[in-house]
Amino acid sequence: MTIYLDYQSSKPVDLRVVEAMLPYFHDKFGNPSALHEIGDEATEILEKCRQTIAGFINSEKDEILFTSGATESNNLALIGFALRNKAKGKHIIISEIEHISIHNITKLLQRMEFTVSKVPVDQYGRVSLKKIADRITDQTILVSVGYANNEVGTIQPIAEIGRLCREKNIAFHTDAVAAEGLLPLDVKNDSIDLMTLSSNDIYGPKGLGVLYVRKGIKINPQIIGGGQERGLRSGTENIPAIVGMAKAAEIMRQEREEEVKKFKTYRDKLIKNVLEKIPRSYLNGHPEERLPNNAHFRFDGIEGESILLSLKDKGISIATGSACSSKTLEPSHTLISLGLLHEEAHGSLEFTLGRFTTEKDVDAALKALPEVVDRLRKLSPLY
Amino acid sequence: MTIYLDYQSSKPVDLRVVEAMLPYFHDKFGNPSALHEIGDEATEILEKCRQTIAGFINSEKDEILFTSGATESNNLALIGFALRNKAKGKHIIISEIEHISIHNITKLLQRMEFTVSKVPVDQYGRVSLKKIADRITDQTILVSVGYANNEVGTIQPIAEIGRLCREKNIAFHTDAVAAEGLLPLDVKNDSIDLMTLSSNDIYGPKGLGVLYVRKGIKINPQIIGGGQERGLRSGTENIPAIVGMAKAAEIMRQEREEEVKKFKTYRDKLIKNVLEKIPRSYLNGHPEERLPNNAHFRFDGIEGESILLSLKDKGISIATGSACSSKTLEPSHTLISLGLLHEEAHGSLEFTLGRFTTEKDVDAALKALPEVVDRLRKLSPLY
Repeated sequence: MTIYLDYQSSKPVDLRVVEAMLPYFHDKFGNPSALHEIGDEATEILEKCRQTIAGFINSEKDEILFTSGATESNNLALIGFALRNKAKGKHIIISEIEHISIHNITKLLQRMEFTVSKVPVDQYGRVSLKKIADRITDQTILVSVGYANNEVGTIQPIAEIGRLCREKNIAFHTDAVAAEGLLPLDVKNDSIDLMTLSSNDIYGPKGLGVLYVRKGIKINPQIIGGGQERGLRSGTENIPAIVGMAKAAEIMRQEREEEVKKFKTYRDKLIKNVLEKIPRSYLNGHPEERLPNNAHFRFDGIEGESILLSLKDKGISIATGSACSSKTLEPSHTLISLGLLHEEAHGSLEFTLGRFTTEKDVDAALKALPEVVDRLRKLSPLY
Repeated sequence: MTIYLDYQSSKPVDLRVVEAMLPYFHDKFGNPSALHEIGDEATEILEKCRQTIAGFINSEKDEILFTSGATESNNLALIGFALRNKAKGKHIIISEIEHISIHNITKLLQRMEFTVSKVPVDQYGRVSLKKIADRITDQTILVSVGYANNEVGTIQPIAEIGRLCREKNIAFHTDAVAAEGLLPLDVKNDSIDLMTLSSNDIYGPKGLGVLYVRKGIKINPQIIGGGQERGLRSGTENIPAIVGMAKAAEIMRQEREEEVKKFKTYRDKLIKNVLEKIPRSYLNGHPEERLPNNAHFRFDGIEGESILLSLKDKGISIATGSACSSKTLEPSHTLISLGLLHEEAHGSLEFTLGRFTTEKDVDAALKALPEVVDRLRKLSPLY
């Protein structure tokens, strides 16, 4: 039996979601662009799902664009907005601890003559509103700050950043993937103009994402073709996945609060016990303003990867950093931005809890981890 | 009971494919980028599926890139290749009857200072090799011609075009979506450099496509992020859909020849009877070089859309043109390129057969169609 504590990298699709999707593979398989009955049915369910997902983030139905996933949504948000609005200015602000896709997209934009400012974060991973305000020039067209960090779990002051941008007439994009299903999302309250969502991060199927685009915000399409999604994202709509994401959003609306209570109990138990039982262990990220399912530690004198591999032998799955860049030898750019030394960053480990986590899973990790750290430290020349 | 004869617009996923996908939603849900056991399992199945799909088109495993669908593959092929290779030249050749996504992509490329030549087709929808050869200049970097037309079903001389391009050192892209599952695909034999495939068109799930990129062909990525798919297409891999497409390809390999025999019998029955029973009815497209599942007609004096709506009332689903542009009032650009007048194009109807078509379906269409045409003609001032 595997004990899975790496929900940030991938989530099992909820079986209720799978059940909701099933009829749409074989029986209700229509293309919404077709003019006959089977096409009409597909159009109807597509728009119903769009409404459900709009409700999940308090947006209007027509502000929801379906994409193939969060990475595509981030590309469409940043490149699509920048290219469409470059006459207004060519300056973009992001934080230093954005997801690797945002970093890599801004590198491309820099080659297209955009200037990108990267705002540093404090030791807990929080972006300061003042530092963003200081970077704004009359050339600034877009600010992109993730709702919460996908590694250390620090939550950003999103409503405040949103208000600042709205006042300055600058568009505000947030990648909400790490926060969705954990924090309540409200694009109106938070003055958000563009928001990235992923289906899998609320236990929906992979291969589907959403870009919320506030009415009045103009972007260029990235994928061109038959003109689906109001011309902003062509390609036949993936109805089974869209039905799945809508079902996942519905479940999340009803169950999030209860679920989050459970996460907090388990997470606090995990943090308290690790810090107590393991000498010279530390919590990365913010002590309070952190995602309820995230515990991120560092341990002096040993490598996170060695711990990960030892726990793997014991059937426990965790992460050393973002799954999206976990196969490189570079330390996490997020941890370095928090001010950690390279060896401290390499000594870090991430636990993320999810819908199917039980207290037994947490207890098993709490049993295995001190033994593993102790054994590895005995072998380590650095400890 | 709906009689569905519009397989070009959408296909039901084969239930054997759905069954193959099921374990990958909830149980085997890993992210291939994760370093633990569940991630390793995902990497293994991903590469196994890549091999299966490579086998389906006689390519190498590493030449298969997964995308979110055929539209994205076409975008990546044309824009990705053009931007990467623009130093060699800025001229692209396509045929006049390409899929709307290819047409719209080339419009974008034209705004980026590329020149696009559109090669006309004959009355049957065939591109002539000589006309392509005549358009080639020392600035030409890419030729894109669909394997078969998605509306009238005409098959192009792909191997000959491939040979010509290879000789001239010009890259050759083909959108094979309309042909896959109907014709044998062999990228080596046909000298193809870039090929678009869709999962749904072989009865796999929607939301997944492939771009075959021959070793040595360089393209720029369109979706940037964590560096998946050798950096050419970022985003967490959609494992359930990939497993589904691989299963669909496996089934197709075994069953295609038998299936095509069935299609030919039904199609020929449909064509013969329609032309015999309905006066002033004509077959669009090529009499022999056409997809085995395609019958495309025009009827003097009435509109295809009226026929479609009348058949819809009788529970029969067909198409007037490409589903991807069926909601516009413009006549099909393909039919106009074949030399049809606007009223002839508007008088056209497409029947496409598929895996779940029975002879009863064909018979029902053959019973309903003459009645509908006759009734509509009695009401038509044009007949």
